Amino acid sequence: MTGSSESGHGEERVLLAHGGGGELMHQLIRDHIVPPINNERLAALTDGAMLPNPQGALVFTTDSYVVTPLEFPGGDIGRLAVAGTVNDLAVMGATPLALSLALILEEGLPLEVLDRVMVSIGATAAEVGVAVVTGDTKVIERRHLEAEGNPLVANGLFINTTGVGRLRPAVSLDVGRIEPGDAVLVNGPIAEHGLAIMSLRNGLEFESVVRSDAAPLNSLVAVLLDTTADVKFLRDATRGGLAEVLADISETRGVSIQIDEHQIPITPATRHAAEMLGLDPLTVANEGKVVCVVSDESVSMALAALRSHPLGRHAACIGNVTATQPPLVELRTRVGGRRVVPRPYGEELPRIC
Amino acid sequence: MTGSSESGHGEERVLLAHGGGGELMHQLIRDHIVPPINNERLAALTDGAMLPNPQGALVFTTDSYVVTPLEFPGGDIGRLAVAGTVNDLAVMGATPLALSLALILEEGLPLEVLDRVMVSIGATAAEVGVAVVTGDTKVIERRHLEAEGNPLVANGLFINTTGVGRLRPAVSLDVGRIEPGDAVLVNGPIAEHGLAIMSLRNGLEFESVVRSDAAPLNSLVAVLLDTTADVKFLRDATRGGLAEVLADISETRGVSIQIDEHQIPITPATRHAAEMLGLDPLTVANEGKVVCVVSDESVSMALAALRSHPLGRHAACIGNVTATQPPLVELRTRVGGRRVVPRPYGEELPRIC
Repeated sequence: MTGSSESGHGEERVLLAHGGGGELMHQLIRDHIVPPINNERLAALTDGAMLPNPQGALVFTTDSYVVTPLEFPGGDIGRLAVAGTVNDLAVMGATPLALSLALILEEGLPLEVLDRVMVSIGATAAEVGVAVVTGDTKVIERRHLEAEGNPLVANGLFINTTGVGRLRPAVSLDVGRIEPGDAVLVNGPIAEHGLAIMSLRNGLEFESVVRSDAAPLNSLVAVLLDTTADVKFLRDATRGGLAEVLADISETRGVSIQIDEHQIPITPATRHAAEMLGLDPLTVANEGKVVCVVSDESVSMALAALRSHPLGRHAACIGNVTATQPPLVELRTRVGGRRVVPRPYGEELPRIC
Repeated sequence: MTGSSESGHGEERVLLAHGGGGELMHQLIRDHIVPPINNERLAALTDGAMLPNPQGALVFTTDSYVVTPLEFPGGDIGRLAVAGTVNDLAVMGATPLALSLALILEEGLPLEVLDRVMVSIGATAAEVGVAVVTGDTKVIERRHLEAEGNPLVANGLFINTTGVGRLRPAVSLDVGRIEPGDAVLVNGPIAEHGLAIMSLRNGLEFESVVRSDAAPLNSLVAVLLDTTADVKFLRDATRGGLAEVLADISETRGVSIQIDEHQIPITPATRHAAEMLGLDPLTVANEGKVVCVVSDESVSMALAALRSHPLGRHAACIGNVTATQPPLVELRTRVGGRRVVPRPYGEELPRIC
């Protein structure tokens, strides 16, 4: 009794019975889910985990991941799930303390895919230096067979990660601190995650593959916050891309933001893919990019700090906050024109993260 | 622009574009998701929430909910999602501090269903006295249309709730404290959640409807723990039912457990439904039942405490821990026979919670 079925190709798959809460489920969890992420607290497999006496204020954040396909150049849903939640903690000024991991598996998911994703979760958590301390697994029925050919519905794995972090002492990240004259920085080339996924889905082949930038930013953010107290606001530019983050700042703070197209880091491969797909890179999701607002005086120190880290080597100052009213985000284009950058409306790119 | 489509019946539904991270998504979150669960911390709609200086050890737990149908006699997926995670905290001896809420919506979900579920989440959180302080929303594509008639796949809403709780001081709940001679208590009639769902799915109509017992047990557990320090172990009997909890205790602690069928509370309607469906009530999920192991001397005090609470009015002592080897769970039947209660194997009841 192996707890999994054999298909015609000898491939082991998730069964609906793996979700029933009985012996089969125990096998699945013990053989496939726990080993790559094992640690003392998780191994107890109780209904929750103890966090002994954390000091100071805590930060609490949750995200579900429904990306399709599950594996893509530069990452997979597991790396995304760990990095994404860690990044939410990091941009709030918190050091990750513990993660929870909740899996919804679709019947028929090849166990080798699950195994690769779990290994990726374990490796990314180790990269961050955080443990997955509690979890949950559910199994849902297979979707209609006709969905098999459709990459948007053929997948069968959703992940929720929720994180608890300790707020760094003396950090004051608050959109309310942003003032006209402040500078807007980004840690590297934009739009890579979204275009990696969309190129794959559209079967586009380019000379150079666009790879997702999915990465945990906690150590990059730590280097930046250790360097200067003049960091006023951080936000990871995920769904909705750079445009969404800048729209949020502009709306919430009632300021305008002017960005320079020729200052925004983007690789030729990404730009080419965006053109082929008719997408505006400003609105495309990143999974390893953070927008930093710092005082004008701190720009060179902040850039030097970012560039000292492997994930910030191509950091750039892309624009400035201005007092122009009404509040809007404006792009100075390469050819010297100007255009308003609207908040993305949300019609494109389902299941990008 | 209402941010939602009109079907032929004028019914507003979730659109894939609601998940794109743009303007439409903001509308969905502000109009349909935040209002019923609103509180100061959640309203900020930042990527996470601050928990200011919690004292002592914390408990951290996560669960995803995939129950189908979404609404059933006695509850809905929202009540289940709040109660289930709160119950995991409660049985670990923790007082709930904060919840996160992550929704995966399927395109086409009627917004009025979402609205009812959100109201139920808000009401259950208020009943517990805990706030939903952070959240996430994703939208996935509609499943194949042919799935529409199939209640197992026609639903379109998955919920993850993750909870942080403060460990009560001086509580020592540990399966290692269980000794032969201890008593096993349950706070009321078993198997109601699972049989409510299965009866509904099978279209069974009985004279009296089986209603789910879904309920948050934090205040019941608090009354019990305030009464006696002789509570050694608590576990909510969810997937796999009473049989699963008892199998866990027996295996982990290396003891046997003898239970008496005629002492186990069960309503006639539940028993009848179980017979019709060919299910063993011992293996059927509960969502408002806790198994308590207490020292033999404390049984009457513990029962009185449980019975003083509306959710424990029918509490009963159902059996005892024994030293019999090898460790197993044994049932004395109504007619005086004995049978071994195995760990449920997990083939039945997908998407029960």
